[in-house]
Amino acid sequence: MNFDDLMANRRSVNFFDPEKEVSEELLRKTIRTAAMTPSGFNLQPWSLMILRTPGDKERLKKVAWNQPKVTEAPVVLIVLADQEGWKEGHPFVEKVFNEMVKSGAMVEDQRQWFADARGSLYGESAEKQQAFACKNTGFFAMSLMLAAKSFGLETHPMDGFDLAGVRKEFNIPDNFWIPLLLAVGHVKDDFEPALPKWRKRVEDIVVTFD
Amino acid sequence: MNFDDLMANRRSVNFFDPEKEVSEELLRKTIRTAAMTPSGFNLQPWSLMILRTPGDKERLKKVAWNQPKVTEAPVVLIVLADQEGWKEGHPFVEKVFNEMVKSGAMVEDQRQWFADARGSLYGESAEKQQAFACKNTGFFAMSLMLAAKSFGLETHPMDGFDLAGVRKEFNIPDNFWIPLLLAVGHVKDDFEPALPKWRKRVEDIVVTFD
Repeated sequence: MNFDDLMANRRSVNFFDPEKEVSEELLRKTIRTAAMTPSGFNLQPWSLMILRTPGDKERLKKVAWNQPKVTEAPVVLIVLADQEGWKEGHPFVEKVFNEMVKSGAMVEDQRQWFADARGSLYGESAEKQQAFACKNTGFFAMSLMLAAKSFGLETHPMDGFDLAGVRKEFNIPDNFWIPLLLAVGHVKDDFEPALPKWRKRVEDIVVTFD
Repeated sequence: MNFDDLMANRRSVNFFDPEKEVSEELLRKTIRTAAMTPSGFNLQPWSLMILRTPGDKERLKKVAWNQPKVTEAPVVLIVLADQEGWKEGHPFVEKVFNEMVKSGAMVEDQRQWFADARGSLYGESAEKQQAFACKNTGFFAMSLMLAAKSFGLETHPMDGFDLAGVRKEFNIPDNFWIPLLLAVGHVKDDFEPALPKWRKRVEDIVVTFD
């Protein structure tokens, strides 16, 4: 499928068929494909919790506005954005720097420059930390939705949940924001795709300030 | 190209050929494709400024760490995330609600429910407003990069800029965060794509907290 068809055919699906499983293999392939997403300084500040059991999904549903799709979808992902994923000493920050040195993209002497750049761009204020975490994890989540669709899966990104409630229920550490939940599964056989929702035209998106 | 090949072949390109133009038609097609991106309550809180002239790109380069690609790329987009794109009375919020009523997805009586939901999810704190703006605009920017690649264009998402400086230089109103700049163009004929950078494995991405 061409990319523009993929974009045009993706829908946020409200009704999943609970009988149609998502294999572990297909889910891993989806995540592996989305893992190629770019990020600021390649820091990849995203993580996923995978919920599959009826018990876990019931626990989530109670803090997610009781949305039926939380338990109907075979898989629900809690998407996490690491607000500290830029800090010196963070294991993935160390890994990213070491890999850059290994590939020749940076040299060891740039360690302090790299730390200073991350600090000024991402760490200087709460608003910068949140932008870093949520923008990059937004990139990743979009890739996940498109990868899923390209492999025959449907998704629904959900904002309707109690963030503090989800954090507490699943023991999610404070450094993670929860930008969205993502239901993943298949539609029922009698599913009729809705027309696309209204979208801004190019003229609405492009702005000038004079 | 299959979606996984598209993901595997996209690179953040550092060297653009300034001689190879990006037609207005192709740029509009790219934006139109990315406009199908989903967003919380379909609010689409993203905008773009399009910079094409040497003068505009020079002005941007000065507040973007003097990165040569800012002037070498034929097009640079300033990607904007509207922190107020959830508020009652915002023109696109009104439009989205009216279109939902028109399509039968909501009824007129849900106006207050819709306003309350947006307020509690996106407006309750500075951190929620920032997450709303940057996550959704992150979705959109990822779609832009992939749409561009699918149409034969290359991109580079840039974080290396002075946000306050860009805001001032281009009269960008305070309600917009600037999550990234996006260089768009073509590579030079002798371009050799680098190997993909290191990426987290599925095992690195999936987390549990017990």
